Amino acid sequence: MSDVRVIIQRDSEREERVVTTGTTAAELFPGERTVVAARVGGELKDLAYAVQDGEEVEPVEISSEDGLNILRHSTAHVMAQAVQELFPEAKLGIGPPVKDGFYYDFDVAEPFTPEDLKRIEKKMQEIQKRGQRFSRRVVSDDDAREELADEPYKLELIGIKGSASHDDGADVEVGGGELTIYDNLDAKTGDLCWKDLCRGPHLPTTRNIPAFKLMRNAAAYWRGSEKNPMLQRIYGTAWPSKDELKAHLEFLAEAEKRDHRRLGNELDLFSIPEQIGSGLAVFHPKGGIVRRVMEDYSRRRHEEEGYEFVYTPHATKGKLFETSGHLDWYADGMYPPMQLDEGVDYYLKPMNCPMHNLIFDARGRSYRELPLRLFEFGTVYRYEKSGVVHGLTRARGFTQDDAHIYCTREQMADELDKTLTFVLGLLRDYGLNDFYLELSTKDPEKYVGSDEAWEEATEVLAQVAEKQGLPLVPDPGGAAFYGPKISVQAKDAIGRTWQMSTVQLDFNLPERFDLEYTGPDGTKQRPVMIHRALFGSIERFFAVLLEHYAGAFPAWLAPVQAVGIPIGDAHVDYLQEFAVKAKKQGLRVEVDSSSDRMQKKIRNAQKSKVPFMVIAGDEDMAAGAVSFRYRDGSQENGIPVDEAIAKIAKVVEERTQV
Amino acid sequence: MSDVRVIIQRDSEREERVVTTGTTAAELFPGERTVVAARVGGELKDLAYAVQDGEEVEPVEISSEDGLNILRHSTAHVMAQAVQELFPEAKLGIGPPVKDGFYYDFDVAEPFTPEDLKRIEKKMQEIQKRGQRFSRRVVSDDDAREELADEPYKLELIGIKGSASHDDGADVEVGGGELTIYDNLDAKTGDLCWKDLCRGPHLPTTRNIPAFKLMRNAAAYWRGSEKNPMLQRIYGTAWPSKDELKAHLEFLAEAEKRDHRRLGNELDLFSIPEQIGSGLAVFHPKGGIVRRVMEDYSRRRHEEEGYEFVYTPHATKGKLFETSGHLDWYADGMYPPMQLDEGVDYYLKPMNCPMHNLIFDARGRSYRELPLRLFEFGTVYRYEKSGVVHGLTRARGFTQDDAHIYCTREQMADELDKTLTFVLGLLRDYGLNDFYLELSTKDPEKYVGSDEAWEEATEVLAQVAEKQGLPLVPDPGGAAFYGPKISVQAKDAIGRTWQMSTVQLDFNLPERFDLEYTGPDGTKQRPVMIHRALFGSIERFFAVLLEHYAGAFPAWLAPVQAVGIPIGDAHVDYLQEFAVKAKKQGLRVEVDSSSDRMQKKIRNAQKSKVPFMVIAGDEDMAAGAVSFRYRDGSQENGIPVDEAIAKIAKVVEERTQV
Repeated sequence: MSDVRVIIQRDSEREERVVTTGTTAAELFPGERTVVAARVGGELKDLAYAVQDGEEVEPVEISSEDGLNILRHSTAHVMAQAVQELFPEAKLGIGPPVKDGFYYDFDVAEPFTPEDLKRIEKKMQEIQKRGQRFSRRVVSDDDAREELADEPYKLELIGIKGSASHDDGADVEVGGGELTIYDNLDAKTGDLCWKDLCRGPHLPTTRNIPAFKLMRNAAAYWRGSEKNPMLQRIYGTAWPSKDELKAHLEFLAEAEKRDHRRLGNELDLFSIPEQIGSGLAVFHPKGGIVRRVMEDYSRRRHEEEGYEFVYTPHATKGKLFETSGHLDWYADGMYPPMQLDEGVDYYLKPMNCPMHNLIFDARGRSYRELPLRLFEFGTVYRYEKSGVVHGLTRARGFTQDDAHIYCTREQMADELDKTLTFVLGLLRDYGLNDFYLELSTKDPEKYVGSDEAWEEATEVLAQVAEKQGLPLVPDPGGAAFYGPKISVQAKDAIGRTWQMSTVQLDFNLPERFDLEYTGPDGTKQRPVMIHRALFGSIERFFAVLLEHYAGAFPAWLAPVQAVGIPIGDAHVDYLQEFAVKAKKQGLRVEVDSSSDRMQKKIRNAQKSKVPFMVIAGDEDMAAGAVSFRYRDGSQENGIPVDEAIAKIAKVVEERTQV
Repeated sequence: MSDVRVIIQRDSEREERVVTTGTTAAELFPGERTVVAARVGGELKDLAYAVQDGEEVEPVEISSEDGLNILRHSTAHVMAQAVQELFPEAKLGIGPPVKDGFYYDFDVAEPFTPEDLKRIEKKMQEIQKRGQRFSRRVVSDDDAREELADEPYKLELIGIKGSASHDDGADVEVGGGELTIYDNLDAKTGDLCWKDLCRGPHLPTTRNIPAFKLMRNAAAYWRGSEKNPMLQRIYGTAWPSKDELKAHLEFLAEAEKRDHRRLGNELDLFSIPEQIGSGLAVFHPKGGIVRRVMEDYSRRRHEEEGYEFVYTPHATKGKLFETSGHLDWYADGMYPPMQLDEGVDYYLKPMNCPMHNLIFDARGRSYRELPLRLFEFGTVYRYEKSGVVHGLTRARGFTQDDAHIYCTREQMADELDKTLTFVLGLLRDYGLNDFYLELSTKDPEKYVGSDEAWEEATEVLAQVAEKQGLPLVPDPGGAAFYGPKISVQAKDAIGRTWQMSTVQLDFNLPERFDLEYTGPDGTKQRPVMIHRALFGSIERFFAVLLEHYAGAFPAWLAPVQAVGIPIGDAHVDYLQEFAVKAKKQGLRVEVDSSSDRMQKKIRNAQKSKVPFMVIAGDEDMAAGAVSFRYRDGSQENGIPVDEAIAKIAKVVEERTQV
C-alpha cells in the first residue's frame, strides 16, 4: 500500500496518476524547468512537497502571477542574505513580492548608498550561482523565538501571527497557520547559509532565479506607522528571463521619459507649487490650452448628446452631505469642515451628485423632461493621504466631467446603452483605442435597493457591455453598495491600463433626496439615477494623454500647432504673414523670431513637440510656399501657403496625428 | 448797534447783507418755499436760527442731499408722534433718515400689522395738515432725563452722548455737543403735542412735508446687537413732491419686478438652496446657458486681446496667503482654515492673484514675454457676513473673470490704455452703455511703493481715463494701500449705478513675491502688476444683466432663442424640421408640442421671455414660411424658412436686441 493516487490538473485537463509514497511535486513535472511550485488542493506548495493520496496538483509556471510572486519572494530572500553577509548588523524587517518586483526592509545605521546597492547586487549574483536550496521547516513559536533572538522585528511578527494585515506584508512572512522557517542550504554540503521566518513557498534553489536587478532604496516606517522606527527599504525586480528583465527596464525608462510630472515641467504645461500644496496643481498657459481644448470638445459632444450644463459651488453646509449620506460613509475622504455663522459646518464637496439632485429637485419634474442629463465640469476636493498623492493622477483637487442622468425605469436600458457608446466614442476621439470593460456586481453583504432592481440593472449593464464587442471582465461583489457599475479600462501607448470612465447606477440617492417626477398618469414616480464620468478627472485624463502621447499631442490638442522657422532674417516677415493668416482660421501658430540659428530653432521646436515646423527660405518665398518639417524629422517642401494652412487645419479638424 | 452783518452764500456767489439783530435764517430767504434749512458756518441749522454777526449763511434746498435728509428726518418724527398717539405704550428707539427714506424703531408688545401701518399713515397725514412747528430747545442732561423718564431707550442715549457711533443712528438723536429736544408745537396754540431727544435740524413745520409713504416694517435689535431687545422698525419714504414720490414708488415696483432673485426663480435660471447655504448659488440648465455664453464670448475676446488662460485650485496652504499678505489684512474676509496633514492650515482662496504670481514665477521670465496677461475664470470664496449676503450680487462664492498683467514700467501706460478700452468695449458688447469712471488715488496715511511710482501711475491712469471721454470722478485717498485704481461705474436700464470693472495697479505683490524678469541688458527687473476684472464676478454681472434686461435677454444670451408654436397639431412636424435646421446653425430652438392651446403657448413663451416666437399654420406651411411674433406682441408674417433662420442667426451674431 505504498502508492498514492493524485490528480494532475493542467488548464482544463485532469490526469489521474498513481505514484509511490513520498513522491514530491517536482517529480510529477520532470524536466519542466519553468514549473517552480505546485498548487495542491488550492494551496501553493514548494516543489519539495510530498504529495498525499487524493490530492489535486497543479503546476505553477514561473510566468504565472503566482510563479512571478514566488520568484520575486525568493529573490527578496537572496537579497536579504546578501545584505546580512555584507552588513552583519542589519536587522531584518519584511520582504514581500510587489507589482513587478519585491522589496526588503532593513534596520541599518545608515541609508544604503548607490555603491552599497551595487555591492549587494554582486553578492546576490554570487548567491544565485551557489545554487543554495530553499528548505522549509515547521517550528514552534518558542523555537522560532530562540532561533531569531537577534531579529527583533521577526520576534514581533511571531507575536502577531495570524492578526497581521495584508497591507504591511507581514502575512507573507508568517501566514495565518503553522509557523515556518526557510533555510538557505549550501548546494553541496547542505550547510545552513541563511534563514528567514517565512510562509513560503519558494523556488527550489537560487539557481532558479533567471534574471533580477536592484532598483532603488527608500526609507519606510516599520509596518507603515510613523510611530515605529524608520527602516531602509531596497526595491528590486526579477523576471523569468533576461529578455523579460530587459523589456521591463526599457518599459520603465520609457515610462520615466513619459512621466507627466516631468513632461509637465519640460513642456511648461503645469506645476504643483509647494506653496499651494501637494495634489493641487496650477495649469500654465500652454497646459491651459490643452485642457481647454479637451474641455471644449467634450462640452460640444455632450451638448450634441442632449446634456444640459449646470454650475454648482465647491463648498456647502454639511447638511447636504448628511442628506446624501457622504458624511456617514465618505467622511475620511473629505476635507475637514469650516465653521461659519457661529456653528454651521461647511465642507468642500468631494462629489457633485448631491448638488445636481438639488437642481433636479428645484421644481416639479414631469416624465416629459426625462431623461434629464445634468452635466458639469465640477471641481471636487478629496483628502487623499499625502503618501498616495501622485502628480495629477492622484490629486487632492480635480475637476470631474461629471454627469447625472435621471430617467424612468423604462428608459434605463436605452440610456445606459447610449451612454456607454458615447463614452467609448469620446475616448476614441482623444486617441485611446484599446479597451476592456469591467462589470462590478452586487456585494451580497452590503447593498441598498431591491434584489429585483439590482438584477434588472445588472442584466441591462451586462447586455449593453456585451453589445460593445469588448472583453468583459466580471468583478463580482465589487459594486458600491448603491448600485452596479461598468468601468472602462483603457490601454495606453506603452500598454499600461488606466481605469477611465465609469457608468454607475444608483438606487440610493433618489431615495435619500426623495426625488420624484410626475408620470403620464399623474402619479409620483422615483427616477433612476446614473452617475457617469468619462475622463473621471480632467487633470488625470490630461496626465494619461500626456503620457500616452509622450507629450507629442496631436495637432488639435497641441498648445502650439505650428511654429514658423525662418531660414534667415529675411524670411521672418513672410512667416509672420503666414501666422496671421493661419490664426484667422483659428490655428495656434507662432514664429520663432529669436536670434537663434535655424538648427537651434528646429531643435527647440522638436523639444517642445510642435506638430508642424513651417520653414521658409528664399525659394519658398519666391514660390509663395513653405516647407513642413515634422517631429520625426521628415520634411515636405514647397507647399503653397494656402494649401499649407488648409493642411494643418484639416489635421486639426480631423483630430489625426501627423 | 443792533445790526448784524452776514454773508449769503449761494452756489459760488457771495452777497453781504446787513440785517437787524434777531433776524432768522428764514427771513434771509423770504418766499423761497423750497429752502428748508440753512448751513451756517458749515453747520446745518433750523430756519428759526437767529443769525449772528459775521456768519456765512447758505440756503439748504429741500432737493439737496442735506434737504432730503432733513425732510425725511422730520417725517420720521411725525411718524413717531403718530405711533405714540395710536399706541401710547410704544417706547421710542431711534429714527434716522436713510437712503431714499427713513425709519423709526419702537418697543411695542406686538409687531405692527399692515392695518396698523395704514392707520399710522392716516394719522401722519392728520399731523402733516395740523402744521405743527418743530421747535428746538437746549436741555441739561438732568432735565432731559427727567423729561424723558418714560423713554428708557432715550435715557440710554443721553448716557452715551458723544460716544454713539454713526452706524446705529444714535448720533442723529443726540449728536456730540449740547443736548437738544425738539418739540412739536400746535400751529395755533403753541401747545406741546409731542417731543423727541434730537440733534436736528428740522423743517419749520409738518406742513413742509410734501409727500410721504410708509413702506414696510421689520424687526431690529436695539442698536444692532443681538444682545439687546428686539424692536419693531417702520420704514417710510418722503419726497419734495408728489410726482417724485410717485416716480420713486414706480422705480421700486420696477426694481422689484426685475429683482434677479425673483427672475432667477421665474425663469428657472438659478437657485440658492437652503441645504447649501446663503451666498452659494447653483445654476440650472437655462441659467447655465446664459452664463456659459457670457463666459465663452468673454474668453474669445480675451484671446483676441492676447490673454493666456490658466487654471488654479480653490484651496491652498496658508503659507501662500502669508507671502501675499492676505492673512494680515484680509483674514476677516476669508473662510476659516481646514487643517490637513496634521498641522497644516489650508484656506479657500479669496483672490486669484497669489496663484497667478506663482505661475509667473514658475520659471525665469524674459522681457520678450511681457506684457504677460494671465487670465482665469477663478472661483473665489469670501466670508461675507450673513446679513449682507444678497442673491448673486453679494455672494460667498463667485467666479471672477480675473486677469493679472505683468509688464515693464515702459509698457504700463500703453497697457492701461488698452485695458480700459477693452473693458469698456466688452461692457458695451453686453449691452451696457452709460458709464462714468472713478479714479481712486493715494491715501497719504497708508501706502506702499515709492511716491514717484504712485505719481507716475496716477498720472497715467488719469490720462487713459480722460482719453475715454467719459465723466471722471476723483476719489482722493480711496485707493487700496498697494496702488491706484480706475473703476468703471455703469448705469442700468432703470438708472441704477453698478460698480463694474476695476483696473488696479499693484506695487505690493511683485515685491512680496520677489517677481523678476530679465531685461534686454541681462539685469533682473521688477515687473509692474495690473489686476483687472471686467465683470468683477460673473454671478454678479449675470444678476446685473438679468435686472438690466428684466429677464428679456437679447437673443445671443437668451437660453432659448426661438420657440416654435404650431397653430394646430398638423404643424408640429413642420416646426420640428425648422428647429432641426436652425439647431444645425447653432441656434437654441425648441418647439412647444404640448397639448396646450396656441394662445397658452404664446403666453408661456412670453412669460419665458423668448425673443422669437416662430408660428406656423397651414398658410405658412404651404408657402414654406413661418411667422415671427416678438416679445412686444408685434408680428411679422410669411418669412421663408431659410430667411427666418438667417434672420435669427443675424440677430444672435450681431448681439442686438429684437
